[in-house]
Amino acid sequence: MAEFDRVWVNAHLCTMQDGLGVVRDGAVAARDGRIAWAGPRGELPATEAPRTDCGGAWILPGLIDCHTHLVFGGNRAGEFERRLAGATYEEIAREGGGILSTVRATRAASEDALIASALPRLDGLLAEGVTTIEVKSGYGLEFEAERRMLRAARALGRERAVSVATSFLGAHAVPPEYRGRQGEYAALVAGMIAPLAEEGLVDAVDAFCERIAFTPAETAAVFQAARECGLPVKLHADQLSDLGGAALAARFGALSADHLEHASAEGLAAMAAAGSVAVLLPGATYFIREERHPDIAAMRAAGLRMAIATDMNPGSSPARSLLLMLNMACTLYRLTVEEALLGVTRHAAAALGLADRGMLAPGMRCDLALYRIDAPAELCYWLGGNPCAGRVVAGRDA
Amino acid sequence: MAEFDRVWVNAHLCTMQDGLGVVRDGAVAARDGRIAWAGPRGELPATEAPRTDCGGAWILPGLIDCHTHLVFGGNRAGEFERRLAGATYEEIAREGGGILSTVRATRAASEDALIASALPRLDGLLAEGVTTIEVKSGYGLEFEAERRMLRAARALGRERAVSVATSFLGAHAVPPEYRGRQGEYAALVAGMIAPLAEEGLVDAVDAFCERIAFTPAETAAVFQAARECGLPVKLHADQLSDLGGAALAARFGALSADHLEHASAEGLAAMAAAGSVAVLLPGATYFIREERHPDIAAMRAAGLRMAIATDMNPGSSPARSLLLMLNMACTLYRLTVEEALLGVTRHAAAALGLADRGMLAPGMRCDLALYRIDAPAELCYWLGGNPCAGRVVAGRDA
Ligand SMILES: [Zn+2]
Ligand SMILES: [Zn+2]
Repeated sequence: MAEFDRVWVNAHLCTMQDGLGVVRDGAVAARDGRIAWAGPRGELPATEAPRTDCGGAWILPGLIDCHTHLVFGGNRAGEFERRLAGATYEEIAREGGGILSTVRATRAASEDALIASALPRLDGLLAEGVTTIEVKSGYGLEFEAERRMLRAARALGRERAVSVATSFLGAHAVPPEYRGRQGEYAALVAGMIAPLAEEGLVDAVDAFCERIAFTPAETAAVFQAARECGLPVKLHADQLSDLGGAALAARFGALSADHLEHASAEGLAAMAAAGSVAVLLPGATYFIREERHPDIAAMRAAGLRMAIATDMNPGSSPARSLLLMLNMACTLYRLTVEEALLGVTRHAAAALGLADRGMLAPGMRCDLALYRIDAPAELCYWLGGNPCAGRVVAGRDA
Repeated sequence: MAEFDRVWVNAHLCTMQDGLGVVRDGAVAARDGRIAWAGPRGELPATEAPRTDCGGAWILPGLIDCHTHLVFGGNRAGEFERRLAGATYEEIAREGGGILSTVRATRAASEDALIASALPRLDGLLAEGVTTIEVKSGYGLEFEAERRMLRAARALGRERAVSVATSFLGAHAVPPEYRGRQGEYAALVAGMIAPLAEEGLVDAVDAFCERIAFTPAETAAVFQAARECGLPVKLHADQLSDLGGAALAARFGALSADHLEHASAEGLAAMAAAGSVAVLLPGATYFIREERHPDIAAMRAAGLRMAIATDMNPGSSPARSLLLMLNMACTLYRLTVEEALLGVTRHAAAALGLADRGMLAPGMRCDLALYRIDAPAELCYWLGGNPCAGRVVAGRDA
């Protein structure tokens, strides 16, 4: 008798091994919070473990949203409304809008307030089958406010059955009090890494390398500090222009470089060689009506792994649905269904450096998402709607 | 004492009278399923009716999705997947794909099966605050199958707390058995109207006037038959090319012409003069990646009322969220928040010829949607997520 804690049967599987890894009429068995067995039901070892009949649902590894700014104060719906009514960027800036309005609201919010405002957004993602989420800081832009954001992110992982991976993004924007002294602020950010990491608040270090944010040299200084703390890095790279962000990320062996609308084929090839993942954020492309799309053909040619995330943030991607991002990746970027689903499972795990999830395979965490669908393609096809029928986190119903 | 059945307080209102018609700290009172009073709480007449504390939610008239093909057999996720994998339209047609695959699946489905497959899609819309939905036939393309679709649509209105408006769309496509005899089929469709109407299955008659569907003359023949039955008409007009559909709709005093990506300014002006509503379907624009957008400036200039709908259908707009359509109308077409919200309330009611809903005003049906938001703009701003906190249909919690 195999010693399983629980078995799921009457389900079809996307194991995400070797493409979608479809197993029709499959079974999954858990032991101690991990997958102990997954495969065709007919080959399931004999067991007396409790059985869950999934009623013909499809089981995927729990979805992973590997790039979010889930924690923030306020929102920018008012700015959205003003823009549609014809206000220019200058007018909105004069009115105190833009990212700095989110910085003000975030600085003014207590840790509890940040948690409370993030929870409904988190719950929407969990309802779709998300079991792991990355959350960045980056609207505090001063030590205590950045720390508060990261503490709020950690707290979300205690409030709900979800794994939270944190990224310290002090180098997200130049705070108003450092205008004209950007290099000084970047050096300050580099110095924040060690104390925040010591408190256990930092799983990775991220930065925004762009003309409107930090230069490649400033980014490299932040990354160097991360390296000295033994922390992996990620990068908001080449979103609005090609500053060589992809190549810079590769040079530091980044877990991922994200956005990449303007990345060169050479940069993408360097990322592939370094084992970095390309994180695609189609919600931002859509929301800011960016006409240039990431060079998917070059990514495929380079053998670069692609992940997909919401980029949930109040300014450029107020996206609260990872399933919608699957549709946008397919519709806007023409990813295949297999590429899209790998992008929110196996490759998203790689973008977070998590080797213990993203596939249905023995030894992996038993994080599962169950869907009432006739075929995996339906997860990419519908615009809205939520076919998620259940979530399992570390072997338990969540 | 005012004789109300129930009162909602501690809420902000968008009455949708005179723009958004915002009333902060408002109240709504119902009597016999209709709104008896709506306005500032301080002016609410004294009453002993039961009170519902809305906890600061915003109340809008229940949303109206005024253009859907909610009832159909199967889905086309497989075709979506094949297209992304590089299959051409010709290959998919050879494999039996396209609209005719939906016609086959719909013809093969029983009335109960059509209802069962439509219910989850309907439930998703209701969860967002929809209280009235239009449902078209048009995948049967023969009398009994069209009838079955319309009966299924009517049944949805009994299964759930929602008003269903039906449109007979026999002239949606030419069925395979009439290939080369399109005019003959159009005449057949015209003849179906009277018996279906007699059975109480038809609230309006719709048609698809397009090069790949029916000519203006064939459309006019169908509309003429509708007129003889005293039924209002609607039109899928000028979606892929300008066949003068907008002007044709205006000539028949249509409730609405829908899509309109290629409509001329003259056609739009004729619609405005005829009192027709322009129904915008941004989900279809997005999903088929149509680069041409409806001429919103010309619509504004003509004083044309604009509505927004999902166009939920398996081929060109598998959209299961009306809130997402609000975002797409704003993001893709640059509608203002006010225009967008009028488009799913007051103007959507007009597109269905329903004078008894779409506003919070005395005499209107007491169909309400409650949202946990800080401002109405949030209904347009977020991409995914559902802030709906309650639905009231004809004065009762639904
Ligand atoms: Zn980001
Ligand atoms: Zn339609």
